[in-house]
Amino acid sequence: MGGQTRYEVEPIGVIHSPFMVPNGTPIQPVYGGGFEGSVEVFEPFRDALVDLDGFDRIWLLYWCDRAVGWRPRVVPYRDDVARGLFATRAPGRPNPIGLSCVRLLSVESGVLRIRELDILDGAPLLDIKPYVPDFDSFPAVRSGWLARSDATRRTADDRFHREV
Amino acid sequence: MGGQTRYEVEPIGVIHSPFMVPNGTPIQPVYGGGFEGSVEVFEPFRDALVDLDGFDRIWLLYWCDRAVGWRPRVVPYRDDVARGLFATRAPGRPNPIGLSCVRLLSVESGVLRIRELDILDGAPLLDIKPYVPDFDSFPAVRSGWLARSDATRRTADDRFHREV
Repeated sequence: MGGQTRYEVEPIGVIHSPFMVPNGTPIQPVYGGGFEGSVEVFEPFRDALVDLDGFDRIWLLYWCDRAVGWRPRVVPYRDDVARGLFATRAPGRPNPIGLSCVRLLSVESGVLRIRELDILDGAPLLDIKPYVPDFDSFPAVRSGWLARSDATRRTADDRFHREV
Repeated sequence: MGGQTRYEVEPIGVIHSPFMVPNGTPIQPVYGGGFEGSVEVFEPFRDALVDLDGFDRIWLLYWCDRAVGWRPRVVPYRDDVARGLFATRAPGRPNPIGLSCVRLLSVESGVLRIRELDILDGAPLLDIKPYVPDFDSFPAVRSGWLARSDATRRTADDRFHREV
């Protein structure tokens, strides 16, 4: 098993953000509070946006098209020792699918206005899902090395965007 | 734009669960409390699992390989009227990428034991990310039609697995 099967994903839209380069981009949506962006959903997928405006937050799944390859261990933004890649949210992954929970401001004519984002401008959108506290919110769980880290970095550098 | 670009994803493992068919499978991980499953990570990706065991919960991204096509509006498990697909967590999506926050019990020799799952047996694994409350937990946000729904269904039927 493994290695043979491949699946194809197709962009259903594009994310517009004020962040043109990794340097200085918030490392997570919660650190992108003051910034706004938008999600342009392509025409064939717009009818599926009905009812989304009742949700305060949405999950965006997108292709990290600027990430360059992956390594099994990386030094994350919030630490100074290498950690296993799957224990980090670094963008360079075997399947570089980004996951961000952003605040939804409005939905109009296939364009979502969003706030609190950490996504590079032009990222291809793969999916939108509603954020549902009953399914997604677990305030009190342990968060491993991140809980022990006293790093307070809130913006990225180019460490995940250089050639491996 | 849209329509031309495609990206390829490659399974990095496979999810083993007690759920063989959609009928009766929990509709979300939180309703799969009593059930255990496992995630088998393929050898080339195992070194990236280091440090993951410090997290109580993890995100699994996987390919919903049993979902059949997509429709812009669907009647979700928790409602009796059609809703916009992107305002639901239905598995049949333009890019059928499933997202589940499961409880992590152990990591050993490339196998994760997990609890609280809603995933069909054999689903191809695409990514693992740590669940970080600071990034992912928003207990008090509005959840649209789901908040107004008084449906209490906790298990699936085959509505998303029949031909469109």
